[in-house]
Order: sequence, then structure tokens, then C-alpha cells
Amino acid sequence: MCIRDSFYAFHDRDVAPEGKTLKESHANLDEIVKVFKDEQARTGVKLLWGTANGTANLFSNPRYMHGAATSPNLDAFAYAGAQVKKAMEVTHELGGTGYTFWGGREGYSTLLNTDMKRELDHLARFFHLAVDYKKQIGFSGTFYIEPKPKEPTKHQYDSDAAACLNFLRTYELLPHFKLNLETNHATLAGHEMMHELEVAIGAGALGSIDANTGDPLLGWDTDQFPTSIYLTTQCMLCILGMGGFTTGGVNFDAKVRRESFEPVDLFHAHIGGMDAFARGLKIAHAIITDGRLSAFVKERYRSWDSELGRRIESGQASFADLEAYIMPKGEATKNASGRQEMLENLINEFI
Amino acid sequence: MCIRDSFYAFHDRDVAPEGKTLKESHANLDEIVKVFKDEQARTGVKLLWGTANGTANLFSNPRYMHGAATSPNLDAFAYAGAQVKKAMEVTHELGGTGYTFWGGREGYSTLLNTDMKRELDHLARFFHLAVDYKKQIGFSGTFYIEPKPKEPTKHQYDSDAAACLNFLRTYELLPHFKLNLETNHATLAGHEMMHELEVAIGAGALGSIDANTGDPLLGWDTDQFPTSIYLTTQCMLCILGMGGFTTGGVNFDAKVRRESFEPVDLFHAHIGGMDAFARGLKIAHAIITDGRLSAFVKERYRSWDSELGRRIESGQASFADLEAYIMPKGEATKNASGRQEMLENLINEFI
Amino acid sequence: MCIRDSFYAFHDRDVAPEGKTLKESHANLDEIVKVFKDEQARTGVKLLWGTANGTANLFSNPRYMHGAATSPNLDAFAYAGAQVKKAMEVTHELGGTGYTFWGGREGYSTLLNTDMKRELDHLARFFHLAVDYKKQIGFSGTFYIEPKPKEPTKHQYDSDAAACLNFLRTYELLPHFKLNLETNHATLAGHEMMHELEVAIGAGALGSIDANTGDPLLGWDTDQFPTSIYLTTQCMLCILGMGGFTTGGVNFDAKVRRESFEPVDLFHAHIGGMDAFARGLKIAHAIITDGRLSAFVKERYRSWDSELGRRIESGQASFADLEAYIMPKGEATKNASGRQEMLENLINEFI
Amino acid sequence: MCIRDSFYAFHDRDVAPEGKTLKESHANLDEIVKVFKDEQARTGVKLLWGTANGTANLFSNPRYMHGAATSPNLDAFAYAGAQVKKAMEVTHELGGTGYTFWGGREGYSTLLNTDMKRELDHLARFFHLAVDYKKQIGFSGTFYIEPKPKEPTKHQYDSDAAACLNFLRTYELLPHFKLNLETNHATLAGHEMMHELEVAIGAGALGSIDANTGDPLLGWDTDQFPTSIYLTTQCMLCILGMGGFTTGGVNFDAKVRRESFEPVDLFHAHIGGMDAFARGLKIAHAIITDGRLSAFVKERYRSWDSELGRRIESGQASFADLEAYIMPKGEATKNASGRQEMLENLINEFI
Repeated sequence: MCIRDSFYAFHDRDVAPEGKTLKESHANLDEIVKVFKDEQARTGVKLLWGTANGTANLFSNPRYMHGAATSPNLDAFAYAGAQVKKAMEVTHELGGTGYTFWGGREGYSTLLNTDMKRELDHLARFFHLAVDYKKQIGFSGTFYIEPKPKEPTKHQYDSDAAACLNFLRTYELLPHFKLNLETNHATLAGHEMMHELEVAIGAGALGSIDANTGDPLLGWDTDQFPTSIYLTTQCMLCILGMGGFTTGGVNFDAKVRRESFEPVDLFHAHIGGMDAFARGLKIAHAIITDGRLSAFVKERYRSWDSELGRRIESGQASFADLEAYIMPKGEATKNASGRQEMLENLINEFI
Repeated sequence: MCIRDSFYAFHDRDVAPEGKTLKESHANLDEIVKVFKDEQARTGVKLLWGTANGTANLFSNPRYMHGAATSPNLDAFAYAGAQVKKAMEVTHELGGTGYTFWGGREGYSTLLNTDMKRELDHLARFFHLAVDYKKQIGFSGTFYIEPKPKEPTKHQYDSDAAACLNFLRTYELLPHFKLNLETNHATLAGHEMMHELEVAIGAGALGSIDANTGDPLLGWDTDQFPTSIYLTTQCMLCILGMGGFTTGGVNFDAKVRRESFEPVDLFHAHIGGMDAFARGLKIAHAIITDGRLSAFVKERYRSWDSELGRRIESGQASFADLEAYIMPKGEATKNASGRQEMLENLINEFI
Repeated sequence: MCIRDSFYAFHDRDVAPEGKTLKESHANLDEIVKVFKDEQARTGVKLLWGTANGTANLFSNPRYMHGAATSPNLDAFAYAGAQVKKAMEVTHELGGTGYTFWGGREGYSTLLNTDMKRELDHLARFFHLAVDYKKQIGFSGTFYIEPKPKEPTKHQYDSDAAACLNFLRTYELLPHFKLNLETNHATLAGHEMMHELEVAIGAGALGSIDANTGDPLLGWDTDQFPTSIYLTTQCMLCILGMGGFTTGGVNFDAKVRRESFEPVDLFHAHIGGMDAFARGLKIAHAIITDGRLSAFVKERYRSWDSELGRRIESGQASFADLEAYIMPKGEATKNASGRQEMLENLINEFI
Repeated sequence: MCIRDSFYAFHDRDVAPEGKTLKESHANLDEIVKVFKDEQARTGVKLLWGTANGTANLFSNPRYMHGAATSPNLDAFAYAGAQVKKAMEVTHELGGTGYTFWGGREGYSTLLNTDMKRELDHLARFFHLAVDYKKQIGFSGTFYIEPKPKEPTKHQYDSDAAACLNFLRTYELLPHFKLNLETNHATLAGHEMMHELEVAIGAGALGSIDANTGDPLLGWDTDQFPTSIYLTTQCMLCILGMGGFTTGGVNFDAKVRRESFEPVDLFHAHIGGMDAFARGLKIAHAIITDGRLSAFVKERYRSWDSELGRRIESGQASFADLEAYIMPKGEATKNASGRQEMLENLINEFI
């Protein structure tokens, strides 16, 4: 469980230990929920979200070794369904503002033994059941999917933003889900965080972000606290660019290094991470207020604001029209420089 | 230009040198087309496809430095449209069975100067114009997109199969396009070729493959001739599994190493590559005939062939049903081993 | 502990649980040693080696979180010394043919808090102490270092063969150590296994190999059982090329996948791995007997077998001599093709 | 050719075009040298170094396709020797302060056709010839090797700092060479720049650095201008930590992006890169003056400043001594936290 601002996320698998039966697990969860409810009342801290890797952890138990919603074992699917049902009830009861799915084992170890299509069909089914149940109980929070390409699996189906969106579109789930993006998951998929953010924003599907980051030279998820001002500035440029979050927020799912094991390290880590995002926010705000960056980008596409540009963009031009326009010119108007170095310097001016 | 079976692909940018104007370029192309037409008649060799990196190369000329269909410069878009219009006409005239788009510079160098959403909108527009023109001239060949994540750009929009499919679905282009997959493009995106094949097959969108492969330890596209029997076997397992190609084929877009510069090297390379695919085909056929692999996979999902499985798959079960089923059981039926090592040995048995 | 041929390697950290004190741990180890001694006598199975990640595990206990021989905490160094002292005694008593060091935490998490030079000095000291103690107790087995670049640390000092050799040369330890190479450790360092083998062989320092391999698309050590005939053939080409092992062997340090959890999976995995190496050995032998590959390589360097070549190689030529030779020729004799594709096909001929 | 401060580096392959014969090439070079000599006199700008990828470019001409000093073709070796001989003469004549070797094709495309040991022997021979010739002509500049792991080759022998040092030690060349390190070459080898710097400094072999950097998500050398203040701060912490450069400097070998093709982009790029290093220098100086970082590191190793620590470090303790010390204690003194997060925050405090 981690508290952020006046929110916390209910995703510590240890708070409600699994019982010997599902019934016992549910009872354990109920005990915890009472405590959280009292604490919420006492402190005013609210619940950001429940998660499918927390309130309903669907990857640690050997039952889920082949996946939960994508398991070849129907019982694993059924068990996962019962767990998420309960987790959604609990999240609803605690006034949670959302529910996050991270498909830790929804993928494969080897394609030799895997019917990928059938597994994806089952995964879509599972999400539809969650959507149905959400309506049934009147839970109005946001559903999030958190992309990650691998680890612990060889391949996770929700590998990056585009893969998630493709899946959601395929199964008509896009209206019901937003994405929760994490920097290290992006880089493990070979993308910059800013790329993933723009992909999600372009689809109207950026719901929230995890603050933690990784090491670009390591091939596993390190979940480090963020300290790069460049990263936080880029995140905030994207987030402010879309008008700020309307759901979710900046969730600290990070952990201190193994060698940082003293209580004060938690303090340094959280303060440092918060400060990094606070500075990123201020810098992004200053860059936007300054206006040069956005003016440059707008100007760069100016030729599209012409009559022909508008006709193309609105679907009123054909290849023949393009030919008729460019043939007499013979050659295209000269390109302008992309000015990458100038723009990188501009960012540095604000850091 | 490379000849395969009785097909060749029209994608050598050198066959029709660019003129000083678009008109001159078109004239150059017309000259070449006459030659090809005669040669087709003489030899019976047919045209596999024209390509947007061949008949209409949209990335080498500085005009396309910021992209073609995704250029901030409207003129580049228009010029590209006129080029593809002509290339489609030529491909049609030569009886080509398809047309392939590879978006070498349809992406970005830095997000700081890029309006990704607007660029993707333009790319979709461009493809729609091609679809419209295809109908207009009665060209019945297949349109292919060839995913690649990067190089020469920092990021290419058609980065992998899922990103392409997401794009095609977003802009309602999926009915009009299939994918042409290449191993090294898959690995540069962090995926096994078999993964990309299954993603495309699952969407009914696998149209063709490029034979060339890469070096898993190098970070750029080496376009090496294929020699790994494991790779060709896996490709053929997927392709035979979907019932074989109905479009496209195995296209040799490979090149010999810089140090293999003698004519006989071309011979070794093509024979070796063809042999590798021929052996892969035979091995895949033997594995399928043997039946143990597919039987194992089918059996692995047996629990889903139950009454409850069918109800879930057909959307007639709810979370409550799952809970009602699993709660009395208390715990899921034990998982069976995934048998990865046994299956890998099984493949080796046939190699 | 894993048994190979008639050898086993004593490196299961669980066989002798750590006690509450070093004394108690030593006593636990003594108990186990009795059992192994009896079993060795009963079965004739011999001990391949003890290991610093087995008989003396120097990375799991929090005491070693900052390293053992490279810990900033002198006590960790001392404790590790006492553990290795005991482990060497035990290995000697059991007639072990070697002792292997794997420096799991001998590296750093961040350079900000690390005095790399001082840590490397300590590591060298530690190895010298081991060399001294080896002489003192009359242990004649081989010392091995097993390179790995990272995981669990950000960076491990013994990162690859070249880094190990550089370290050993720097501190005059090379006469006392050989390398134990593992495929996945090679690929994590960005090298092919064959590269690492040749680097070690060139220095006369290849002592042994671990059979396990990895997944080239995953960024962590998977320790998979080997099944690629290409890999095992390449390993055996190198090993036969150096005249076979005079120390060590092919050690199975692999583990089945998490999803392969039934006893029979161990059977499939070990048989498959042994078979892969057996086939690799047969194929390498056939290639060597065939002679074309080695003849090609020998011929490729033929110009060096000239009089001038011999003078250069023996240090009896100067830049002036080279200039005097090449200036009148004006240009170098034309290069021959490297024939990579032909050679790859040649390998396939034998697979 | 690039000018830095009052220095320039003579490494533009284009300034002296290759002639049809070696003699003609030498004559071309002589022409250029006259110009440079005059310009040096006129401006006071001095020559930083000549380079083996400049004054003597040993990788572009097809003659060097299999390497220069490591070519199987003796003539390539001889030609390269004659070229470097001339280049050293010219560098000496121009008062150059050093000569840099970058082994662009000194490596291999495939190990199947390569005798790595013989090639490395030849490479060492070549360097010894250069050392001999340096003495002969009285050139007192520094020799540098610039590590890079790959590209254009599959593998380059000078792959990283440790590989270079191992090579130099093996062939008794270490007293005659220093390293010139570049960030993107480090990251392509899987290392942070700071790691490579510390490895070189630890061996007393850091001679110079290239300013250019790369993109951690791309697998090829992008040679981008540096803009990350974190990177430049880390570089300067290392360089100031060793007392500053006594040879070489910060060499701008960078190039603007393909899309930054206007003259003013060169201005933005160079100013931005210089500013980034200037800020890094100021920040590093401030951190060192502040003293907290170095004090923390010193304190971290305090236990080694004890009597036993000194005895171990000076080689006067044995495993038995360590055992005698730690056995009565039973367990090591508890470790202190590594404080990674606090130290990362400390860096941010100065940025």
C-alpha cells in the first residue's frame, strides 16, 4: 500500500493473506477492509484504486503460473473471476476511484504450447465480465490496464500502449478502459515514456501514470524512484498538454534498492521522487508559458493549414488532386530543419 | 529487384532513377516498365508486388527527410501521393499481385518537434487515398504494410504487428491491408518472429513474409540471408497452421555481407536461404503430420471444452457464475506442467 | 547439487543451511560432507568442484548485500574469507577437482557510493589469499572464475571474459585461474558464447563451461536447458579446436521453467540438454573431420605465411619495411570474399 | 576536422582524398598539411591529434573490408602501416599532441572464418611498430585507443575499456597507450560512461573523451551532441576526481541529426554541447566543494582504515587470520545502507 497526496493504492499483496480456501481469503480481506475504512474516516485519506495485482493478486499463487484470465486451466479463470469480483466490491465499498489490471502472467513462456488467439479471446471475455459487474454494482471508478512487455513471463499480452489499444479495439473494450503507464515498462518495450504517453493521449486513453522508473542499461524492471528531471519534465509536458489528468494521478509504485534498507531511505526516496515530479511540473509549466516550443511545433506544420491541407485532412482530396498540385511545381517546397539540437537546448534552458 | 520462384518484387530504387522533376521520374519509370513487360512475357516470371520503397521510394530523397505521408511539409505528402499513384498504375499494368508499404521515415527523430496525432491522421489519410485509387483503377492486388520499429528514424509508426493493427483499426483501414513481416524487424521490436506471425494470423492479417533475418546481438537491421532451421521451422509451423499463404509468399529482401562481394556469394546466399526455408517447410510438415505437438496444445486447453468453458467463451457466464462454481471447490484444479523442455526436444527430434 | 557423468558440483546453497553463527554453519557443513563422502564411496561419483556460490554462498545473506570480497564492510570480507577457507577444506577432503568463484554481488548498484579501485584491490587480495591457502593445504584443483555482467547487481566486476582476464593480469593472478563460461552470461554482456570461448582460449584460460543458455530477447539470466544445435555445435567446435577440456567439463547449472514443475520435466530437460550437446559434439567432430571449414580459414590467412608475414609476426619488420614493400605496388592485392554465407551453409550441411 | 577551444582534431577523411596510389595519397596529404600549417600559424589554433580514422582512415576503403592491422590480407596490413607512418609524420610536423587509433574494422563479421588469436597478434604487432616509429621520429604525443564494441563490424576487438586494457596488458603495450572514451560506445557495450571512465582511471589510462553521446534505446552509434546535464556532471566528477586531464580533452566528434541540415543547426549543436559540459563542470566542482558526496564514500569504507584493514590491504593477513577475527564475533557487523536515493537527490540538489 502506498499513500500519495491524499490517496493510497490498495495493492500490497501482503495486507490480506490468502486463506486456504477462497472463502477464507475473502474473510481475510473483509477484516482488512474494516481497518482501512476506519483509517480513511480518521485521516481523510482516500483510495486511488484497487488493483488486480493487489486486492486480487493474479500472478503469485502457483494457481496462476500459466496466467489467470489466459490460463489453459478454466479453474484459474474462474478463481480469478471470483477474486476480482470481491476486489471490485471492496474497492467500491472503500470509495475507490478506479481499478487497475496488470497482467503479470497473462502471456506465455513459449509459443510452442500456446494458443494465443484463444487466450486473448478469454482475456477479452474476462474484461467484459468485469465491465458487466461494474455496472451491476454501480461502481463508477475508472478501469486501467498497465502495459508491460515481459517479466516474469517471456511475453505479456499487454506489452505496450499500442498492443493494449489494439486488443481493446479488437474486442470492443476501448470505451471501458484507460491506460496506466510506467516508465520502466515503456523502456523494456523499447519505447521512451514520452512515446507511450503520446500514443495513449492520441487515443484519448491516458488514465494515470506510475512514478517509478528503471535503468536503461538493465533488462528487468527495477522500479526505481524517479530522479531524472528530464523524464519528469517530459511526462509533465505531455500531461499538461492533454489538459492534466481527469482520472488517476502519479502513483508511486517504486521501491528502494535492496541496499537501501533503513527506514530513512524510504524518506529520501519518496521526497526525492516527489521533488523530481514537482520540478518537472514547474519546468513544464514554464516551457508552456514561454511558448517557444509549442509555437515552433505549430509553425512546423503550417503548410497543412492551407486550403489543400484542409481538403486532404477532411478527406476531400484524391491522389489525382495531389498529382495535379505537385506536377506543375516539379519538386516539393524545400524542407525546413527539424531543429532537434535547438529544441534540446531550449529544454536545458529551463532545467 | 529480386526473383523468387516465378515471381519478382519491384523494389530496387535504382532501376528507375529519379529525374529532375516528377514528370521526368515518371518517364524514367515508364521506360523501365516496358523492359519488364517484355521480360515478363518472354520468361513467364510474374510480378509479386510493387513497393512504396521501390517503385515509389519514399525515404531516400531529402524531400522525405521528415517523412512522406507524415511529413510536416504538405508538399512531401503531395509528391508521395503522386509517386504512389504512378507506382500503383505501373504495378497494375505489370499484373502485380500486390503493393507493399514500408514507412521508412514515417515516424520521428524527436518528439519535441512532433505532433504525433496529426501525423498519424495524415498517414491514415494517405492510405485511404491509396484504397480509393485502387478501386478507381480496378487494381485487385493486396496492400501490405511492413512493420519496423526504427532505423533510419528514432521511431517508426508501423513499429510492430500490434502497432500496425491498432493503427489500421483506429482508422478503419483493417479490411484493406495485410502485413508483410520480417524477422529482423520483429527482433528489433523485441519480439520473436513467431510472435509477430501469430499476432497477424490472429487478426486474419498475415499476408506475406520477408525471408531475411538479423543478428539478435546487433541493434540494427542486417538483412542477412536466413540459415537457422529453427527460425524457418517456426515460420512454417505458423504459416501451415493458418492453411498456407493465400497472398504474398516468402520474399528474399536479403543482402550478402559487405565482405561477401563476389558474384558466387549471391549464389551461396540465395541457395542457402532457399534451402533453409525448404528444410523448415519439410520439418514443419513432419511435425504437423506427427501430430504430437498440436495434440499436446489441444489437450492443454481441454478444460475449456467443458460446458462452463463454452458458456464463458460464448458470453453466457458472469463473475457470479464463476464464483458459484469455484467457491465450493475452494481451490482450482491443479495445473499441469507446460512441458516447455519436452516440446523443445520434440522440435529437435525433427531437425 | 547436480550430477553430470560421474561428477557432481557442490553448489546447492540449501544442502548445508547457514547456522546462527559461523561456527554453527561450519558444523552444518561438516554433517553434509559426511553424507557426501559416504555417497561418493558407495556410487563412485566424484566431485567436479566446490563453489563460492555453493559450499560458500557469498551473495544471499544480507551480510553480503554490498558484496563479499568487495564489501565496504571489512567484516563481510572477513566472514567470506572464513567461509571460503572452510569450503576449500571441504572440497579438498571430498577430492574435488576444482573450486569456482562467481561474484554475484562483487560489483555495484551505483557508482555514486563506490570506490571501484579500492574494491577491485580487495577482490584481488581475496583471490591471493585463496591461492595462498590452496598451496598451504595442498589442494591441487583448478580455480575458476565465472563471468557475468549484471543481475542481481547493476554491474558485476567479472563482467565478461576480457574483463576477468584484465583483472587477473592486473593483479598477477592469471597463472592461478581459469574461466568457467556460460552462454546466457555471454549474451547479457553482448557477446556470442563462441566469442567468449575464443577470448578465453586465446589466453589459455578456458577451464570449463556451464551448459545452460538464455533467451536472446530477455534481459535477465534464464538459465534454460540448452536445445539449440547451433549453439552446442559452436561450443564443441571451439572446445575440440583447443584439444578438448583438460579441466572442468560441461556443467548443467540449468533449471526448468517455472511452469515445468513436475518431476518428469527434469528428465526431459536433462536428456534434452545432454542430447543437444551430444549432437553438437558429433556435428563438430564431423565438420572437423570433413576439413573444409578449417582449410578455408587457413587458406584465408595464407598471405601471412610468406617471408614478409613471418618477419612481421616475429617482430623483425618496421613501418619503413612495410612502406618499402607496398609503395611500389601502389595498391594492396585484392581481398577475397569472406564467404560468410557459404560457411553458414556448410554448418547447415552437417545439422 | 573539428575545432575545440584552441585545438582541432585532424580526422576528416575528406580533407585529403585518397589518390590512385599510396604515393598520390601521400602527396594529397602533403598539400593539405601546408594549408593547415599556415592556418595554425595565422590563428594560433593547435592540433589536438591525428587519427587512424582520419589522417589515416583504415576502414572506408574496400582494401580494409576485413580489417587493416587484423586483415587476413597481409597487403592491407602493409598499406595501413605505410598510411599510419605518414600520418604520424604529418601529425608530428603539425605539432600534434597525440594520435588516436579507432579500430573500425579491426574485428570480425563471423567467427566461422576468423582466427581471432592470430588477428590479435597482428594488431599488437601493428601497435608495437607504431610505438617504435614514434621513438624513431621523436614524436612525443600521446597514443590513444578509442573503444567501440561493434558497428560497422559484428564485433570490434577494442570493444570496451576492459577489453582494451586486457589487450594492452597481454601484449605489453599498456605503458604506451591511453584510452579515448565516448559515451555511445560505452552504452553500446552495455556500460555507463561513468563506468568506463572509472575503469580507465583505475588503470591510470584515461587520456581523453569524445563529447558525443547516443540514444539509450537505439542500437547504433548516433554521435549526438551531448545535452544531458546528468551525463556531463558524471563525466566531470570522474575527470576532476582524477585531477583533470593531463592529455587530450573533450573532443567534439558529434554530428547534427540528418534533419538538422541548416548551417545554424551546427551553431545550436556546438553551443548546446559546450554549454552542457560547462554546466557539468560547474556542477561537479560545486559537488566536490560541498564535500558531502566524497565524505559519504570515504566514511563508507571506514572499516578498512582499521589495523586489520591495513594488514589485509598490504598483503599481511591470511584466511586463517580472517577466521580468527570473525569466528569469535559469530556474525559480521551490520551493514549500513548504501543510500543510493539520498545520493541521487544530492546530485539533483546541484542541478
